Amino acid sequence: MVQYLPIDRTFAALGDPTRRSVLERLGRGSATITELAEPFAISLTGMKKHVRVLEDAELVTTEKVGRARRCSLGPQPLEDAQLWIESYQRMLDDRLDRFGELLEKTKGES
Amino acid sequence: MVQYLPIDRTFAALGDPTRRSVLERLGRGSATITELAEPFAISLTGMKKHVRVLEDAELVTTEKVGRARRCSLGPQPLEDAQLWIESYQRMLDDRLDRFGELLEKTKGES
Repeated sequence: MVQYLPIDRTFAALGDPTRRSVLERLGRGSATITELAEPFAISLTGMKKHVRVLEDAELVTTEKVGRARRCSLGPQPLEDAQLWIESYQRMLDDRLDRFGELLEKTKGES
Repeated sequence: MVQYLPIDRTFAALGDPTRRSVLERLGRGSATITELAEPFAISLTGMKKHVRVLEDAELVTTEKVGRARRCSLGPQPLEDAQLWIESYQRMLDDRLDRFGELLEKTKGES
């Protein structure tokens, strides 16, 4: 049984252009679902689903204000996702370096 | 109609612990589907599905060698994903800075 971690939900939430745009929009201040849906050709129901995915990943929090639902950026930053990508890129760079050293060594021997 | 970009497939592919482990494993060298499945309590069919998602995101390439399918790291690096996260974090930092400046200004005025 696979154990899903917050980082899984973070990456999955980021895998959609509308959800990334919503995060960028909320970075400029909180907004209702209606305000979030406006710039996209998307139904309120569709936007609610995206917000729910972002909420599950703790990237967004929502609060009922009267009849509207106000969304803000959540407590979960993207640091875990960033650290994973950075460590992966470092691993790839090390591998390239080792390959380069091997090439140099082979040239020296020929 | 939402247009999905390579970066969407990259993030979606990274949103699973098995798939991230497969990438880390392939960073140490190519492997067959059977070799990839071994350390996980996962069927060959399950591993094939994960590899297909990684292949669609161009993070992995596969090649039929005899009866086995050999997997290697693909041409699509994680740079786009890394750049998006970095620019998002920068936006959050700027927002915090502006908030800090506002607080200082308010203190000065009181």
